[in-house]
Amino acid sequence: MIIADARAVYSPEGPFKLTIIERRDLEPHDVLIEIKYAGVCHSDIHTARGDWGPVNYPLVPGHEIAGIVIRVGSEVTKFTVGDRVGVGCMVDSCGECDNCHKGEEQYCLNGMTGTYAAIDRYGQFTQGGYSTHIVVTEDFVLRIPDGIELDVAAPLLCAGITTYSPLRHWEAAPGKRIAVVGLGGLGHMAVKLAHAMGAEVTVLSQTLKKKEDGLGLGADHYYATSDPETFKQLAGSFDLIVNTVSAKIDISAYLSLLATDGTLVNVGAPAEPLSVNVFSLILDRRSFAGSMIGGIRETQEMLDFCAEHRIAPEIEVISANQIDEAWERVLASDVRYRFVIDISTMGNE
Amino acid sequence: MIIADARAVYSPEGPFKLTIIERRDLEPHDVLIEIKYAGVCHSDIHTARGDWGPVNYPLVPGHEIAGIVIRVGSEVTKFTVGDRVGVGCMVDSCGECDNCHKGEEQYCLNGMTGTYAAIDRYGQFTQGGYSTHIVVTEDFVLRIPDGIELDVAAPLLCAGITTYSPLRHWEAAPGKRIAVVGLGGLGHMAVKLAHAMGAEVTVLSQTLKKKEDGLGLGADHYYATSDPETFKQLAGSFDLIVNTVSAKIDISAYLSLLATDGTLVNVGAPAEPLSVNVFSLILDRRSFAGSMIGGIRETQEMLDFCAEHRIAPEIEVISANQIDEAWERVLASDVRYRFVIDISTMGNE
Repeated sequence: MIIADARAVYSPEGPFKLTIIERRDLEPHDVLIEIKYAGVCHSDIHTARGDWGPVNYPLVPGHEIAGIVIRVGSEVTKFTVGDRVGVGCMVDSCGECDNCHKGEEQYCLNGMTGTYAAIDRYGQFTQGGYSTHIVVTEDFVLRIPDGIELDVAAPLLCAGITTYSPLRHWEAAPGKRIAVVGLGGLGHMAVKLAHAMGAEVTVLSQTLKKKEDGLGLGADHYYATSDPETFKQLAGSFDLIVNTVSAKIDISAYLSLLATDGTLVNVGAPAEPLSVNVFSLILDRRSFAGSMIGGIRETQEMLDFCAEHRIAPEIEVISANQIDEAWERVLASDVRYRFVIDISTMGNE
Repeated sequence: MIIADARAVYSPEGPFKLTIIERRDLEPHDVLIEIKYAGVCHSDIHTARGDWGPVNYPLVPGHEIAGIVIRVGSEVTKFTVGDRVGVGCMVDSCGECDNCHKGEEQYCLNGMTGTYAAIDRYGQFTQGGYSTHIVVTEDFVLRIPDGIELDVAAPLLCAGITTYSPLRHWEAAPGKRIAVVGLGGLGHMAVKLAHAMGAEVTVLSQTLKKKEDGLGLGADHYYATSDPETFKQLAGSFDLIVNTVSAKIDISAYLSLLATDGTLVNVGAPAEPLSVNVFSLILDRRSFAGSMIGGIRETQEMLDFCAEHRIAPEIEVISANQIDEAWERVLASDVRYRFVIDISTMGNE
């Protein structure tokens, strides 16, 4: 058995406490990773607070993990000690269904195993990346390219792939008009990625507060959604809208911004249902879709794409004893644009 | 000026009265059609009763029109006197926007002109097919192939194209699992068309009352949606669901029946918004879409497809004095599967 230090919550209200957790001994295809950095994702908060349903406590969140391989199982072929690696939102899947065969493990028909708050194939409750070590089967470990530092690599494993995958699926490219709703952790990655893919990028944010930032990240246009004029002016303008806001918004108003055959894709999910005016869909053959992270092959492709295009998230590195505060700031949208925990500070008081 | 006999409603409550209406004198590209049959579409009722917003009265509904060309304008090249022709849900569009250039006039960016209850380019309020004659510019007139009788041709102009277009757009073909929600005028055409395209077709109807019919029309499977078991048994089963029901239904329950990357397309719109559970979309990259009729080129393609595959709607021919009664029966789902008005009975008491 392998012991790791970790930060866990013990109830929906928190706070985080330093604890130790057990990681399984290495199976033949497992790798042991010494975690260097872990990103703070809004879904960590949703999950830990029970917004998406009841969870077991203590819970160690974190599915944006970057670190170094320090031990490998007897049959591991893809990695060796010293490799710079990452782990995202899932750590296993059945490997046998159609979706797994297609490399879309995130949609595993038998249910993929989440990096935390899930039950794995050994019957163990999974615990995430707010910890010093993790054991993961090699098929769910990503290689971090040389050009990407480990601290900025971490958020790519969720915020990066969650926005990259729908941009690829709905074919972001030169000539495509893409809007990104919300300029947070996911939104700012969507802007950078869509821009690098050659699309014309518009940010739709509540206010113009981050306008300068948005244009600096690669957006061509920036509009405030608090201004009703925005919806009139941009009606029918976009081929794709990536909605990174998981709060309840007036989705029908955003659908009206799509051109014929356009798609609005949600990459986050509000706990409550959204109300959709079906006329908005019918009158221009629009679609309202959802997308969840990406497959392992596509996640590697995203990392390589980021290295090639020198894309990295904007981050603020925090110590392990600042997680509670960081969560409050995430909830207040007071982060530019992703908190990343320096795991070397795990023991800090 | 051309005078036509017509049946019009004078208020949301009806009833129909025999009246006369004026049709414009032929412009150079116009054809004058003697209407032989007009289908009764659920949207006639929605429109006339103000469900979709206020309308002008008197109103002559009808956008499933089949007849004979009896006069042509001086520059008409596509049709000649005696041709068997049809007119569907639109009679004009700008002809200049991107969508018109693509042959998707139904999504004309300047607004297509509806066959009734619209204002045309001459500033006139359009009146539909519950009448003896209509004048239409030749670009919006369809040729009815020899193999299709005029009475069964009429419903193809709306019910046919409204289901054909999404089946083509989302690529109904052998190997595709397609569900049709509702076995009414549109639903029964969706079943026939999807079957002819080689797909595996499942009908999802409230009860099993029409099961024998459904299987006879070409469905491979038939399930009752009033049985909660149906939703468990069919979870994740379909590549495409064509929802022909324009009443408010639990759309999230139907979304759960889609396989990964599946699409649920609404071809009708309830007046009230639908509530969508976004998790249903995200967890399998599903889409909720809408589709409205089809372009003129595609409508002609549909007519030719129906002639080639010997597909015709199931109809019940009625006299003009039975329209009120027929509407009540449509609202009670008591029609197998489309009422068609024999326009030669226009003067009947």
